[in-house]
Amino acid sequence: MPYPPLPNQLPARLQDIPAPQARLCLDVGRFMTEQLAGAGCISREQALSSAPLNGYTMLAACSGGADSTALLLILHYLAPRMGHTVVAVHLDHALRQESADDAHFVSQLCSAAGIRLFSVRTDVADLAAAGRCGLEEAGRKARYAFYAKTAALFSRPVICTGHHADDLKEDVLMRLIRGAGWPALGGMQAVIPERSLLRPLLVTEKYKLTTFLEACRCPWREDASNSDPSFTRNRIRNTIIPLLQQENPSFGTTITELWEAAAADRDYWTDVLPELAPDKNGQIFIARSTLQGLHKAGRLRLYKKALEALGAGQPLHASIMALEHAWHRNQGGKCIQFPGGKTARIRHGGICFCLTA
Amino acid sequence: MPYPPLPNQLPARLQDIPAPQARLCLDVGRFMTEQLAGAGCISREQALSSAPLNGYTMLAACSGGADSTALLLILHYLAPRMGHTVVAVHLDHALRQESADDAHFVSQLCSAAGIRLFSVRTDVADLAAAGRCGLEEAGRKARYAFYAKTAALFSRPVICTGHHADDLKEDVLMRLIRGAGWPALGGMQAVIPERSLLRPLLVTEKYKLTTFLEACRCPWREDASNSDPSFTRNRIRNTIIPLLQQENPSFGTTITELWEAAAADRDYWTDVLPELAPDKNGQIFIARSTLQGLHKAGRLRLYKKALEALGAGQPLHASIMALEHAWHRNQGGKCIQFPGGKTARIRHGGICFCLTA
Repeated sequence: MPYPPLPNQLPARLQDIPAPQARLCLDVGRFMTEQLAGAGCISREQALSSAPLNGYTMLAACSGGADSTALLLILHYLAPRMGHTVVAVHLDHALRQESADDAHFVSQLCSAAGIRLFSVRTDVADLAAAGRCGLEEAGRKARYAFYAKTAALFSRPVICTGHHADDLKEDVLMRLIRGAGWPALGGMQAVIPERSLLRPLLVTEKYKLTTFLEACRCPWREDASNSDPSFTRNRIRNTIIPLLQQENPSFGTTITELWEAAAADRDYWTDVLPELAPDKNGQIFIARSTLQGLHKAGRLRLYKKALEALGAGQPLHASIMALEHAWHRNQGGKCIQFPGGKTARIRHGGICFCLTA
Repeated sequence: MPYPPLPNQLPARLQDIPAPQARLCLDVGRFMTEQLAGAGCISREQALSSAPLNGYTMLAACSGGADSTALLLILHYLAPRMGHTVVAVHLDHALRQESADDAHFVSQLCSAAGIRLFSVRTDVADLAAAGRCGLEEAGRKARYAFYAKTAALFSRPVICTGHHADDLKEDVLMRLIRGAGWPALGGMQAVIPERSLLRPLLVTEKYKLTTFLEACRCPWREDASNSDPSFTRNRIRNTIIPLLQQENPSFGTTITELWEAAAADRDYWTDVLPELAPDKNGQIFIARSTLQGLHKAGRLRLYKKALEALGAGQPLHASIMALEHAWHRNQGGKCIQFPGGKTARIRHGGICFCLTA
């Protein structure tokens, strides 16, 4: 396929795309408004209006790989109907020659489609060395920092990433293997309002995205990260998921349904559990009466919520259960340690969560 | 190893077993009382008393395989401490020469240990032909019917099966592959009060059971069912689970934790959702006010509960979601079909579930 795409090769509008691919775009559009409405980012009325994203700027995080190239074009073709503006954001990781080529490709694509591009080159290897973390983590941090900075230039920004249903499958498996509770086991969220983040393709299978690009005669760059450091994910993708798929050819649908059920439950527990925030001493106190009013299923989640509100560090299930046990036995003074320097102490009147540092 | 065991080979009492194996027995005993208390079968006070199962008869379903042989012995060694009586129940499937040998082995083992045995020979192949179902299903039905019949001879019977933590892992994977909602995804229950069923070994890993039997110098029969019809399960056991275990050597713990969290949530939803039973016309009507008082997460579960109360047949997630959608849009008259000849119809005042037959 020619590279970069010639401006006159790309379909100009949604109407110029073959019908199945145009339907894909509309499905994605519907998913976006449903998810944004579900998360309270837009009203139900607005979601059903003719231009539901009027005034919004969708920042399409585009690496030049198939997923994010498809994302960029789908958002682009949806823009006239849905009322949003599309801009592309690209971070050149400055890691290999290919990363400059990727940047060049994204730039050419944006020119061809008439999409405004915000692009920056950052030495991720330097960042990783300075931050003493892996390349992947440093890259991720640099990307999202750049996206957030660019988003701040707009009044109603939404950062869109190309995560799709195959990523979701891997994510659920990763969470099952590492051990996630429920609803976290259901996989990554489609919307994270606090971060103005949206994953428009989360229930769309990857093969549909490459089919879409081919139908649009749009090339893409092979995503170098697919064969990159995260070995667990690659083994899950290349070995474990095909085995599961063999047992149930509709395994992808099964995972999407699980995800949908998890989203309902996430929303439920957010509704049911009280809001928590550290007081001026950086402590969170949960009163005995609050705990007594909850079922064990709610208490276990409230402990986690309190620990998360104190900062980073994943609590172990065993420690959460030990805390529940201590609370149940009313073991006053008993103190349970959690990662990130956090502790929970049983007091007469409830449980006090704090940072020991 | 000699077969059958000589009476004087088996340790006589818990005190005669090597310490690690005696601890295993005590762990199982604790798990049993916790689970029975959690399900409301015995009181919390009783669970903590010196003979918590006083007056109970534990019917150990024993095939002669390692899992159920270990179960039988563990229950036997725990009896003096916990106060229960142990009897063995064995169904000879009359399928192969081995099945008669299995029956003989169980009989010899029970004689050696001084355990009362209820044993019957049933032609499962005949049953399968008559019932037009698979051998496995016919065998399972015949076994549980025989267990229930034997249980009825006692005043406080508990049917105990040898399902262990490795079975639980397989079960969770099976449910993930086939598509189970939450909390069903967390795996089989340890107690099913309606069926007087208990799975004392559910969080005990299989290797601990064979180690236990070896330490007790007790032989067992190789379980023919392990290489039997259920191919999906065998592939999960032999291929998929080892791969997951490679990614996380503590995968077994992860699954046990998931199971524990699911148990808390199952209990929660049982508490929260209203009781449902068909009226004299065999219908279940859920009033609009009840539905409106519930979050979507609760409604989805209540639909399932109503359908289950009408009889066999697993509802598809997509149909449940279609029902929610119809209810949400207040589509009066709209009728959704479910497997097992069940329907749900949106009425002005709520939703009516019934059998169409």
